[in-house]
Amino acid sequence: MYYTDKKLQWNVRVDKPNPIFARMLQQAIGGVEGEIRVCMQYFFQAWGSRGPAKYRDMLLNTATEEIAHIEFLATAVAMNLEKAPVSLQEEISKDSIGGSVLNGMDMRHILSTGLSAYPGNSNGVPFDMSHIYASGNIAGDMYCNVAAEATGRTLAARLYHATDDDGMKEMLAFNIARDTMHQEQWLAVLEELGPTHLPVPNSFPQSMENKDFNYSFLITTTDGVGNQADQPWTTGDAPDTKGKFNVKVASPLGHEPNLGFGRPDTFGQKEQSEGTVSGAVNRVKDAVTTIVS
Amino acid sequence: MYYTDKKLQWNVRVDKPNPIFARMLQQAIGGVEGEIRVCMQYFFQAWGSRGPAKYRDMLLNTATEEIAHIEFLATAVAMNLEKAPVSLQEEISKDSIGGSVLNGMDMRHILSTGLSAYPGNSNGVPFDMSHIYASGNIAGDMYCNVAAEATGRTLAARLYHATDDDGMKEMLAFNIARDTMHQEQWLAVLEELGPTHLPVPNSFPQSMENKDFNYSFLITTTDGVGNQADQPWTTGDAPDTKGKFNVKVASPLGHEPNLGFGRPDTFGQKEQSEGTVSGAVNRVKDAVTTIVS
Amino acid sequence: MYYTDKKLQWNVRVDKPNPIFARMLQQAIGGVEGEIRVCMQYFFQAWGSRGPAKYRDMLLNTATEEIAHIEFLATAVAMNLEKAPVSLQEEISKDSIGGSVLNGMDMRHILSTGLSAYPGNSNGVPFDMSHIYASGNIAGDMYCNVAAEATGRTLAARLYHATDDDGMKEMLAFNIARDTMHQEQWLAVLEELGPTHLPVPNSFPQSMENKDFNYSFLITTTDGVGNQADQPWTTGDAPDTKGKFNVKVASPLGHEPNLGFGRPDTFGQKEQSEGTVSGAVNRVKDAVTTIVS
Amino acid sequence: MYYTDKKLQWNVRVDKPNPIFARMLQQAIGGVEGEIRVCMQYFFQAWGSRGPAKYRDMLLNTATEEIAHIEFLATAVAMNLEKAPVSLQEEISKDSIGGSVLNGMDMRHILSTGLSAYPGNSNGVPFDMSHIYASGNIAGDMYCNVAAEATGRTLAARLYHATDDDGMKEMLAFNIARDTMHQEQWLAVLEELGPTHLPVPNSFPQSMENKDFNYSFLITTTDGVGNQADQPWTTGDAPDTKGKFNVKVASPLGHEPNLGFGRPDTFGQKEQSEGTVSGAVNRVKDAVTTIVS
Amino acid sequence: MYYTDKKLQWNVRVDKPNPIFARMLQQAIGGVEGEIRVCMQYFFQAWGSRGPAKYRDMLLNTATEEIAHIEFLATAVAMNLEKAPVSLQEEISKDSIGGSVLNGMDMRHILSTGLSAYPGNSNGVPFDMSHIYASGNIAGDMYCNVAAEATGRTLAARLYHATDDDGMKEMLAFNIARDTMHQEQWLAVLEELGPTHLPVPNSFPQSMENKDFNYSFLITTTDGVGNQADQPWTTGDAPDTKGKFNVKVASPLGHEPNLGFGRPDTFGQKEQSEGTVSGAVNRVKDAVTTIVS
Amino acid sequence: MYYTDKKLQWNVRVDKPNPIFARMLQQAIGGVEGEIRVCMQYFFQAWGSRGPAKYRDMLLNTATEEIAHIEFLATAVAMNLEKAPVSLQEEISKDSIGGSVLNGMDMRHILSTGLSAYPGNSNGVPFDMSHIYASGNIAGDMYCNVAAEATGRTLAARLYHATDDDGMKEMLAFNIARDTMHQEQWLAVLEELGPTHLPVPNSFPQSMENKDFNYSFLITTTDGVGNQADQPWTTGDAPDTKGKFNVKVASPLGHEPNLGFGRPDTFGQKEQSEGTVSGAVNRVKDAVTTIVS
Repeated sequence: MYYTDKKLQWNVRVDKPNPIFARMLQQAIGGVEGEIRVCMQYFFQAWGSRGPAKYRDMLLNTATEEIAHIEFLATAVAMNLEKAPVSLQEEISKDSIGGSVLNGMDMRHILSTGLSAYPGNSNGVPFDMSHIYASGNIAGDMYCNVAAEATGRTLAARLYHATDDDGMKEMLAFNIARDTMHQEQWLAVLEELGPTHLPVPNSFPQSMENKDFNYSFLITTTDGVGNQADQPWTTGDAPDTKGKFNVKVASPLGHEPNLGFGRPDTFGQKEQSEGTVSGAVNRVKDAVTTIVS
Repeated sequence: MYYTDKKLQWNVRVDKPNPIFARMLQQAIGGVEGEIRVCMQYFFQAWGSRGPAKYRDMLLNTATEEIAHIEFLATAVAMNLEKAPVSLQEEISKDSIGGSVLNGMDMRHILSTGLSAYPGNSNGVPFDMSHIYASGNIAGDMYCNVAAEATGRTLAARLYHATDDDGMKEMLAFNIARDTMHQEQWLAVLEELGPTHLPVPNSFPQSMENKDFNYSFLITTTDGVGNQADQPWTTGDAPDTKGKFNVKVASPLGHEPNLGFGRPDTFGQKEQSEGTVSGAVNRVKDAVTTIVS
Repeated sequence: MYYTDKKLQWNVRVDKPNPIFARMLQQAIGGVEGEIRVCMQYFFQAWGSRGPAKYRDMLLNTATEEIAHIEFLATAVAMNLEKAPVSLQEEISKDSIGGSVLNGMDMRHILSTGLSAYPGNSNGVPFDMSHIYASGNIAGDMYCNVAAEATGRTLAARLYHATDDDGMKEMLAFNIARDTMHQEQWLAVLEELGPTHLPVPNSFPQSMENKDFNYSFLITTTDGVGNQADQPWTTGDAPDTKGKFNVKVASPLGHEPNLGFGRPDTFGQKEQSEGTVSGAVNRVKDAVTTIVS
Repeated sequence: MYYTDKKLQWNVRVDKPNPIFARMLQQAIGGVEGEIRVCMQYFFQAWGSRGPAKYRDMLLNTATEEIAHIEFLATAVAMNLEKAPVSLQEEISKDSIGGSVLNGMDMRHILSTGLSAYPGNSNGVPFDMSHIYASGNIAGDMYCNVAAEATGRTLAARLYHATDDDGMKEMLAFNIARDTMHQEQWLAVLEELGPTHLPVPNSFPQSMENKDFNYSFLITTTDGVGNQADQPWTTGDAPDTKGKFNVKVASPLGHEPNLGFGRPDTFGQKEQSEGTVSGAVNRVKDAVTTIVS
Repeated sequence: MYYTDKKLQWNVRVDKPNPIFARMLQQAIGGVEGEIRVCMQYFFQAWGSRGPAKYRDMLLNTATEEIAHIEFLATAVAMNLEKAPVSLQEEISKDSIGGSVLNGMDMRHILSTGLSAYPGNSNGVPFDMSHIYASGNIAGDMYCNVAAEATGRTLAARLYHATDDDGMKEMLAFNIARDTMHQEQWLAVLEELGPTHLPVPNSFPQSMENKDFNYSFLITTTDGVGNQADQPWTTGDAPDTKGKFNVKVASPLGHEPNLGFGRPDTFGQKEQSEGTVSGAVNRVKDAVTTIVS
Repeated sequence: MYYTDKKLQWNVRVDKPNPIFARMLQQAIGGVEGEIRVCMQYFFQAWGSRGPAKYRDMLLNTATEEIAHIEFLATAVAMNLEKAPVSLQEEISKDSIGGSVLNGMDMRHILSTGLSAYPGNSNGVPFDMSHIYASGNIAGDMYCNVAAEATGRTLAARLYHATDDDGMKEMLAFNIARDTMHQEQWLAVLEELGPTHLPVPNSFPQSMENKDFNYSFLITTTDGVGNQADQPWTTGDAPDTKGKFNVKVASPLGHEPNLGFGRPDTFGQKEQSEGTVSGAVNRVKDAVTTIVS
């Protein structure tokens, strides 16, 4: 169960409300790099957690913290929308700066929410929950989490750079710090699991994978190996310490696929079916061309 | 530019076509753990790549390989749909196995594609490109890629286990091997970048982040630290070797937020606006309650 | 800020794990009538709340409760997936019941989550956050909330009826009870606001709306008023007590629209542009036909 | 069947075409508060209607009217796009007002439609039909409809306020009037059904719901009842007149969930499975911590 | 404006209700090949129509007809759901046919609609309005319409084949006939426009397109022209009669792209920025490799 | 399998980088008229191709070319973002032109990609793969492809007109030329198939479709035939040469639908169920009204 003290984790302050920055902040709420995503991702990982309970609890602690992040960011959006223009009246349109700001706003801040945040990104695209990665594999999930926090911290750094409001900079410095911690903590789990956690999932025996191709960098560029020679991913021990990298120029192990004619009961064109005159004529032409070429 | 030899990277063989397995395989094509995702992700990372060219080329090599993965999986779907039932006629419905198979099929394999693959997952949800993570930060992108390949290999292992068709098992053993390699190669880049790549992005100076909270595991569980004491993420050096973990019980740094009354020109209810009788009455009630409680 | 005691709000018990019921339960997690929706809807209404604080706090209390609902439903999904078949091996396919169950499962429970819940509905469609209604108008939002709880309770009743597992029935009886309460509490706010809350928003003066059509039921059926005469919505006082219903047969107040020719710089076909021979010929034909007919 | 007289329900007039207002109007066409939504919602409710025919006919009358609303709004969008800039040529960019307008436009009005409307919202997000609520329960559906019209009228009021074009204001005054009527008519049905329509669905016997929690407001805030005491939703008769409200401080009825170890055939990490050394070690550590704490 | 006589365009009859066929029929309602799509597509084309009025009226006539198609299909879905199983009780699960049917149903027919249709496809994916193609170009739109009706008639043929219910077959024979007509009518417009409608848009002067590549079939297969020689698309007059087809082996007209280093203010990794030691070292390595290879 | 030479198909040059044009170009990458769509559409058509191999190979050649189109457009987006403003600092805001540009940018170019392209459209809506039309019917697919290229060329013409950058104009002149060719080549296939390809699918015998309505233009406008008389789609031979067009005023072939009462186990309101007092009373009222009217 969950409880709230109704207070903000961070004391949000906005010195110069800016509706364009409100729009930018939406990315940190409802963007794929944002807080709803990490919150729900950690929750679903926790709620489906199997194995040692300490991982479930670790996830729950941080998921619960993330609700507070959405909350104070939503508050920051609303505060940046203070005094935002909400009409296109001529006086504003004639003012090039005011008009420009209005035209650049997320119109849903005016039309749909009454100057508050909503769970969409900086383009107004609603967050969709297909971005909640919870695979049931603790190592895979940890990589998903590091990825989320790494792109999240990059986003926060860009927001920090974009604003010249001191209150917003302080808030984002806090976000960035938490993103640092969260990156580190998921990596610490992977360190604890040790190199034997690779390749993920480590419960599938490598003896059953195709051993001719499991440590080979495949070259698909027509100029050959080029600058890919002697790279850490083409030579030496792989990070899992179980294999040695090598390079191969890619070549097909299979033939041209041939799905044959269509079944009449699937309603392609007659020309795609065996036994029709047009199908047969076309097929012969194909064969001839193939033989000749 | 891109070229094709029209041949399959893997020689797909299906001994016992199974339309339910065709549906399952869709997850590996159009699921978030699937091949369209990694293909497009690596391409967009390559096409936006800045800095050392060898990373762009590494990404291009593998992105181009992934097209071939989509291709042979699509072929495998079509081959598993050979002889699939396409009508609900009574004889089939009376057959408990045939009826069960038909009822469990992805109906779009019958209705929309004429027994071929399409870019959706095993529930028929179309792949959407918001899952293409390409942040412009090489380290963040590498973690996104490891995450994609770790969940991808987990998916492939589950598909391998789900089928009893030897041809499919062989194909998936190849997929699993490639997923091993791709995990390793992205990790090798991170190893090459060394621990100084953390926290991502390493171009944002840590001196500017909030230093009171950047290595603190925050406890939001009401029973306190519990099993989170003395864990690799609560004590000792952080993976970036730049900080030491500690634990703090979370507490609010801010107050209860108060966005005040609504502006009349945003068309909340009158009761939400300053100066209305109902608004004032409610506000007084609130104040009284707060004082009393 | 938010806290958790790590315990479930309801003590979930599953006597006869059933993977098909697990799929059904997903609707209550990630469906539009489900718990993620109400949780996030109440949170965003609270976080953007303006006016009397008691409404914000009311919303926060219930939003925070709803997290616990998602949590115990997710647990119930995982418990219903205990012992689920995860492979298509021939023995299972030959068993008509086992095969039917496997074929009817949400394959992502096998392939993507490792037998746990995820934030999608019973068809695997991920929840998308455009369903979070938070308009900044307390009355409108209350109706959105009643709507959510009314469809939510209907869903829960259908799930209750669908299962024959005593543990699940007990859990759903709790859900249904909470949905009762939540319906009632949002309605109680509307009662407190009184009939003057209508029409929503009550801050837009009715003197400015079109007074010829604001209490008229418009008939668009070609057989006239029919069974719509003397209905509570066609005669008598309207619920807001500010107007009296009447009935009008709908008729156009405007003309046929005519957007004219296309501008050449918008790249329609030449035939759509003024001054082209083909455009002129067509236009003349139109005019003639119109005159004649 | 359906018929059209090709005329507009409202005589659309635009005095000062404004491409930014065209973008805003899209919200009223393809937004979740817009006309496509109510049109399709009422149609699907009508087409699936069971029980008294007068409800089906009521819904059909209004659904059919709503097509005309989409139509005249689409016309208004096109008329607001008259004379819109369609190129970035330098002269325009140098003009701060003209340039600002162009930059703020929905680019798809230039690139995709040739200066006409399309079924997306003011951010260009296409309307998706998951917003069509038609539950098969007449009372639940009526609340969904009131919610749609309440947020719809709020949107129309905001649009009315945003424009300074007399023609647009007149059109929106008509929209607002119709939204008034539609709110009232759905509420009139609920009044006709009487208080026994609650809780929705009234066909699920309340004797079977959990009677300990069906009229209890649950407190999840850590400061206790606070301003929620003596509110219309915490004391007195509930709106359904079947129960009395009370307040309870929320507490868990369940334990910490424990899903146990992962099955080896679901391909979590080995560390998550029973019988592995690492799994066992971790499990012991957990147990010890739990005992100690 | 629009009107209805409340009657069905086709007299729907279902002899043997089949919930699996109900699920299949959803594709014809809410699938991309379905009736909502054509209805809304023709409406938006009509509402944005510029140029000769007869095209607008043609579109309006057929768009209005299509509402009736959605209507009778929705009725057919509801009628196929008569007597559908709505619970998982043990007796049904033990029955291999009944269980199979239940497990194969669209669970939202039970849980969300109460045995009626909804605007989603046979996998429950809601229709989204991005599929409404209305480009402002009459010729392009006609091709979109032919495409919609061609895939629509293919879908209807597959549904016809899938059912063994005489009532459903008769209804679908009507749908198929209408799809024939609609294909033909859009093609008739293209015939009327004559070959000069190509290439679409014909208002962009071909003198301004790249004349070296506007009638060339480009070969990207590594085995050269092969069976593409002497095909109707590689030799002879093009359909627009304005050019002659030829074949070219594709080769790059550009260089390897080089986006250079990342700007520090965009927060890639330091290694991606000019002037950093690591960036420089990597760049040198690249250069050396390029020179050597 | 696929290969790359790492070079661009077109030598992209940007003389005056313009972040607004970068946003516009996104439509050509991730819009429904864009390059990802045609690329993936042709690939899935090829990978599911049945019948004559030359069609598969034709599709593969062009699909493979389209990857290169996405590539050079992505490069063009990145180059247009050179020197884009990435912060809202006061100096920029005070500059009406610079500020206007910043406000009109796709913020994800700053926040999510670090000044590179991503697979979304000019409104930031991610491309979703439901737009990949691959029906298994070669004729239907060709019409889908012509439609894609016709709307694609219209988009490219509009982009050409929108920019005043010579490098961009040259690149788009190449795109437009390729769109010309691709339109022509798909039409050439349809010409090769001859008029017997109609109606699509030609494998469904027309003797089984409803012959009373397969060449009839149905009038649903209340003013009758009007300007639809003597049009190419209402009189004369249909394009398939198999039928003659005629006109009919539409009239219902069915009755008012009546789905009867709701089953109690589907949890509508009691009033919707047979046998309840309220249901009966309502039903009688309906009957009386119907008789009277």
